[in-house]
Amino acid sequence: MGLNLSQKIIQKHLLHGETKPGNEIALKIDQTLTQDSTGTMAYLQFEALGIDKVRTKRSVAYIDHNTFQSGPENAGDHAYIQSVAKKYGIYFSKPGNGICHQVHLERFAIPGETLLGSDSHTPTGGGMGMLAIGAGGLDVAVAMGGGAYYINMPKIVKVNLKGSLNPWVSAKDIILELLKKLSVKGGVGKIFEYTGEGIQCLSVPERATITNMGAELGATTSIFPSDEITYEFLKAQGREKDYTPLSADSDAVYDQEIEIDLSQLEPLVACPHSPDNVVKVKDLKDVKVNQVLIGSCTNSSYMDLMKVAQILKGKTIAEHVSLAIAPGSKQVLTMLAQNGALASIIASGARILESACGPCIGMGQSPAENAVSLRTFNRNFEGRSGTLSAKVYLVSPEIAAVSALTGYITDARNFGDPINVELPKKFFINDNLIIPPAKDGKSIEIIRGSNIKPFPQGKAVSNEITGKILTKVGDNITTDHIMPSNSKLLPYRSNIPYLSDYCLTPCDKDFPKKAKDFEGGFIVGGSNYGQGSSREHAALVPLYLGVKAVLAKSFARIHMANLINNGIFPLIFENEKDYEELDVLDELLIKEVKRQIQSGLIEIYNITKDKKYKMVLNITKRQKEMLLAGGLLNLTKLQEERSKK
Amino acid sequence: MGLNLSQKIIQKHLLHGETKPGNEIALKIDQTLTQDSTGTMAYLQFEALGIDKVRTKRSVAYIDHNTFQSGPENAGDHAYIQSVAKKYGIYFSKPGNGICHQVHLERFAIPGETLLGSDSHTPTGGGMGMLAIGAGGLDVAVAMGGGAYYINMPKIVKVNLKGSLNPWVSAKDIILELLKKLSVKGGVGKIFEYTGEGIQCLSVPERATITNMGAELGATTSIFPSDEITYEFLKAQGREKDYTPLSADSDAVYDQEIEIDLSQLEPLVACPHSPDNVVKVKDLKDVKVNQVLIGSCTNSSYMDLMKVAQILKGKTIAEHVSLAIAPGSKQVLTMLAQNGALASIIASGARILESACGPCIGMGQSPAENAVSLRTFNRNFEGRSGTLSAKVYLVSPEIAAVSALTGYITDARNFGDPINVELPKKFFINDNLIIPPAKDGKSIEIIRGSNIKPFPQGKAVSNEITGKILTKVGDNITTDHIMPSNSKLLPYRSNIPYLSDYCLTPCDKDFPKKAKDFEGGFIVGGSNYGQGSSREHAALVPLYLGVKAVLAKSFARIHMANLINNGIFPLIFENEKDYEELDVLDELLIKEVKRQIQSGLIEIYNITKDKKYKMVLNITKRQKEMLLAGGLLNLTKLQEERSKK
Repeated sequence: MGLNLSQKIIQKHLLHGETKPGNEIALKIDQTLTQDSTGTMAYLQFEALGIDKVRTKRSVAYIDHNTFQSGPENAGDHAYIQSVAKKYGIYFSKPGNGICHQVHLERFAIPGETLLGSDSHTPTGGGMGMLAIGAGGLDVAVAMGGGAYYINMPKIVKVNLKGSLNPWVSAKDIILELLKKLSVKGGVGKIFEYTGEGIQCLSVPERATITNMGAELGATTSIFPSDEITYEFLKAQGREKDYTPLSADSDAVYDQEIEIDLSQLEPLVACPHSPDNVVKVKDLKDVKVNQVLIGSCTNSSYMDLMKVAQILKGKTIAEHVSLAIAPGSKQVLTMLAQNGALASIIASGARILESACGPCIGMGQSPAENAVSLRTFNRNFEGRSGTLSAKVYLVSPEIAAVSALTGYITDARNFGDPINVELPKKFFINDNLIIPPAKDGKSIEIIRGSNIKPFPQGKAVSNEITGKILTKVGDNITTDHIMPSNSKLLPYRSNIPYLSDYCLTPCDKDFPKKAKDFEGGFIVGGSNYGQGSSREHAALVPLYLGVKAVLAKSFARIHMANLINNGIFPLIFENEKDYEELDVLDELLIKEVKRQIQSGLIEIYNITKDKKYKMVLNITKRQKEMLLAGGLLNLTKLQEERSKK
Repeated sequence: MGLNLSQKIIQKHLLHGETKPGNEIALKIDQTLTQDSTGTMAYLQFEALGIDKVRTKRSVAYIDHNTFQSGPENAGDHAYIQSVAKKYGIYFSKPGNGICHQVHLERFAIPGETLLGSDSHTPTGGGMGMLAIGAGGLDVAVAMGGGAYYINMPKIVKVNLKGSLNPWVSAKDIILELLKKLSVKGGVGKIFEYTGEGIQCLSVPERATITNMGAELGATTSIFPSDEITYEFLKAQGREKDYTPLSADSDAVYDQEIEIDLSQLEPLVACPHSPDNVVKVKDLKDVKVNQVLIGSCTNSSYMDLMKVAQILKGKTIAEHVSLAIAPGSKQVLTMLAQNGALASIIASGARILESACGPCIGMGQSPAENAVSLRTFNRNFEGRSGTLSAKVYLVSPEIAAVSALTGYITDARNFGDPINVELPKKFFINDNLIIPPAKDGKSIEIIRGSNIKPFPQGKAVSNEITGKILTKVGDNITTDHIMPSNSKLLPYRSNIPYLSDYCLTPCDKDFPKKAKDFEGGFIVGGSNYGQGSSREHAALVPLYLGVKAVLAKSFARIHMANLINNGIFPLIFENEKDYEELDVLDELLIKEVKRQIQSGLIEIYNITKDKKYKMVLNITKRQKEMLLAGGLLNLTKLQEERSKK
C-alpha cells in the first residue's frame, strides 16, 4: 500500500510512536522559526535548557510583529533576540526584512523537511512541500534543543483540485471555498494534502496562500507536492540545490477526500466576523468600503503585489477609501521599487506600510467606528482590527485592488482584461538583513533590557498541595479571558510580571491581587476552559501567579497541553455537580500527589467544607512525567542530563 | 528709509496697529493649514463660529500626525476633518499624502502671502518667501473665519549668509550653527530674515530646512527672499504663476544683524537633549549608533532623500543599526520609486515608514533603553522619542546616511566623493490625494464619530465669581504638567472630556476629581506658570473643568494668551507673599468683575480666611473684551453679528 506525501515525511522524521490517527507520535524537527511576539519567551525557555547551540539544521528568528516601537520595549526585545540568535546558532532576520512566513518561503523553506514555528501560520511552508507546523514557544525551544515534537498523528485529507482557475479567480478563493465547505473547525486534527491537475496552475506563492490559511480550518498543517513548479521557484531564488521532487505514491491511501473543481470557482469573500462566513463577491450588493488593506502573510508576495500594481496603474482610489499596502518582504518591496510597480501603487493613492504583519495583528490602521474594511488577510474576528464595531471582509488582492478604485466591494470580473503576472526568472537576492550566527557564540553577551524578565519555571511536584480557590468562572472561558492580548499588552510578552496584573481580569478584576495575596492556589472553571488562541502565556502567567491546578468540567485541547507543559494540573470533575459546591476562598488539599498522578484519578479534599471530590487527570504517560518534573522544560533538562551520563 | 522683506509683507497685510517692535498688530491671513492632531479642535472651533465657508484664499487640512490608528479614534478624526473640509471650502490632504509642511511647500505655498498654521513648524513656508507663522487652533479657526491674527510686532533680524557651503556641509548645519550661537531662546519675539550671497547656493527645500527649524530658536518665523531659485522650484512644480519676486530694499533697516560665513561651516550635530547643544561632528569620538531615522518636516524632501539614496546605493547598513526612512510626501516617495532611488534605499537595509510625521512626534520607532538614536529631525528633547533614557542626536541627512553604514556618528567628509543632487526640472505632479472642497457645501453632512466631542465654550463673564482653590502648584509648571501629551493621549485631542481626567495629574492626581466635585474653581501657581509647548488644550481642558482664574506669580506668555482666549482670568499677585497664604479648598470671591477687568487690578476676597489680595490683570484692551465676552470665539461671533447689522 502506497504512502501519501504527509505519511512519507512523517515516517522519515518519526522518533517514536505508531502513525495511526490519534496516536501520539514524536517527530524530529529540521527547522524552526520564531517571530518576535512569541520569540522572546521561546528564547528565554531555550536559554533555560542550558544548551550551547541549536541542534536543528536551520533556526531563524524573525522580527515582524512588534515593529511599531511605541516605547522602548519592542526595540529592547529585538536587541535581546538578535543577541540570543548570534550566540546560539540562529539566523536573525532584522526588522524591515519582512514577515516570517514570506521570508522563510523565499530564503529557507526546503521540500521534505519539517518546520516548527511559534506562529499559527507556520503551515505557509507547506506551499513548498514542507511539513510545517505551528506550535507554542516552549515546543519550539525544545525542538531547538534537539528534542522531539510530540503530536497526535493527524488524519490525512486529500484535496483533489480539478480543472484550472478562471481569470480574476485566485488561490485565495480556493481556500475560502474550503472554509465555506468545512468551517473553521473542519480541519482540526487533520493535514490537508493538495493534489490533482489543478495544482499545475498554482505557483509556490499561490500554494502558500492556501497552506497559510489552512490554519483557519483549524488544520494541523497543509501541504503541496514538490514538483517542477517548486523547482522553478527555488531556482529563481538561487536555491535549486534545495530541490527534491516529492509526491504521494500513486496508490496512496487517505483518511478523507475532497474535490474542488477550480473552473467552477468564482471570486469569494469572507464576511464579518469569521473566515468561514463565505459568500460570492457578486452576491454582496453595494457594500461601501472605507478602508482597503493589502498584505499579511497570506497575500503579500511579489506576484500578489504585481497584480495589485497592474490594477492600480494610472488610476486613483475612491475619495472615501484609505488604501494601505504592507509588502511581505524586503525582497518583494525592493523588486517592486526596481521595476516601477511600486511607483504605480503609490501614485494611485496607496499608503505604504512597513514590511511587517502590521494591521493583520491589530498593529495600526484600525478603521473608524462601524467602518467597512476589506482585507487580503487571513482572519476577520470581531475586534481584531482594533475597532470593535468595524466590519472586516477578506478577499483576494485582485478584488481588494479593484474595490479600492470603485469604493465598493466589486466583482473584478466586470473590471477589464485579466491580469497576468509571471513568476520572475530570477528574484532579487540580497540577504543583508539576515544576520548569520557567530561561528563561536561563547563570547557573545546577551542584551537584556528591563522588559526581558526571568520567566516562571515549574518545580518538581511536592507530594502535598494546598491552597485556596482564587476564582470561579463559567463555561467557554477563552485564553483571551485568561491572558488578554491587544496592541497595548503585546509589547510585554517577555515580561510575565507585568502581564500578571491583567491575568483573568476580564472575568474577575481582583484575580491577580488574590493570587498574589494568597501566594497562588486553584482556579475553578466550567466547560471548554481555555478555548481560542493557543496562547502559551495563558498558562505561563497563572504559573507565575502560583496557580497549582485548574478544576474544570472540560478543557480545550491546546490549553490543557499548555497547562501540563508548565506543570499546572488540568483536573476534570468526575461528577460535574461538584462544580456547584465549590466557592471562592475554599481551602483545598491534595495528598499523595505522586501516587495519584500515576493513577489518573485525583481526590481533592475541601478543608473549608469538609468534603471530597474525585477529579480525572486524563493525560499520557509522558505528560504525567512532565507534571512530576514540574513541566516540559524541567523534563527536557532531566532527559538531557540522563543522556550525558 | 527702505523696508526689509518682513516689513513689506506685514505692511501689506496690516489691519490695525503700529509696526513698532512689541506693539500689538493685527494681520490679514491669506492661507491656513492644520494637521490632524490640532486640526480636530480647530475645526470644532471654526464650526462654532457659524460661518458657511472659509474666508481665506486657501485653507488646507492635512492628516500626518495620527496615522498609526491604534484604535478607532484616529480614523474617526480623519473622517470628521475630511467632511468638515468638504463642507467649508477647505482642501483635504488624505493620509499618505505626506507631512503638512512638505506638501504645503510643494503644492500651495506662495511668496509674499501670509500663512497661519496650527503647528509650530509652519515657518517652513518661509523658505518660499511666505510670512508663515505657527499658532493655536483657535487663532487658525478665527483666521479661517476671516478674522485678523493678533501678534506683537517682532524684531527683524538680518541673517547675512556669506560664501558658500563646502561639500558634505548642508542647510541643516546652517540652522544648527545659529542654534549654537543663539540658543533655543535666542529667537523669541523675532523674525529671522535671510539674505546675502550665500542664499544663492540654497534651493527652496534647503531654505525650508532652515526656516522650519527656526522654530527651535523660539522665533516667530523665518523668511527667505523670493528669487530666481524660488521661480525654478515653482516652475518645476508647475506653479510658475504663483511666483512674485520679493526682497528687502537695498537700504532696509533691521533690528539686529548676524553674519555666518558658510565656507567656514563644518558638519554639526545637536547632542542630547536640546537642539542648541551643538558640537562639530568630528569632535564626537566613537559614538556607536543603534538607530538612524531620516525624515520629518525638516529633512524629508526629494533632494534630501536623493542624497541619502546615493550614499546608501550598493551598500549595507551596519549590523547593529536599524535605519528607518519616512519620506516627506507622496510626491517625494513616488519620484524615488520611479527613478530607482527607493530601490537602492531599501536594498541597503532601510525600513520604509509611511509618509508622515511618525517617529519625530514619538509615534513609533522608540529606541531601546539607553540607545543612541541619530535623527534628521528638529527636536531631541528628553523622552520625546518615547524612550526616556535614549540619547537622540540631530544631524543632516548626509551625516545620518553615512553613519548608518559605519554604525558610528561619522563625519561624512572622510567618506568619499561629494554627493551632488540637482533640483528636478519637473516634479511628478499628481494631487489625487488632495480632495478639493465641494462647490456648494450646504448638503455635506459632518461625520462625527464618538471621539469627536463638543468642546467647552466660555460664557460672557458674570459680575461675581466664587469658587474654591482646587490645587496649588509650584514654580515652572509646564503645559505638559497641565495637559500631558503622549502617544496614548494624542488620539484624544478632539475629546476634551476624556483628556480632562489627566489634567494637572502629574502635579496633583486628584485635581480632575476635585474640579468635578466642586464644579470648577481656582488654580494657584508659582512663577512662569504654563511654560513649554504652546498647547491650547492646557487652557481648553481647565475651561471644561470649570476653572475660572489662575492666580500665579507670573505666566509664560503663550499660555497666558491661551487662558484669555478661552475666557480664563490670568491673575498675577501684586504681592508675591500672598501666594503663601492661600491654601487648597479656600473659598474665594471676586466682586464687580466687569468694572475690575477694565481697571486692570482685581481684588480677591478669601472667604475662608477673611483676607483680601490684590491681583494684576496686565492685558490689552482687546483681551479685556475677550474676558468680558467669555473668550475669543465669543468675541469673534459678537463682532461677526455686529458687522452684519
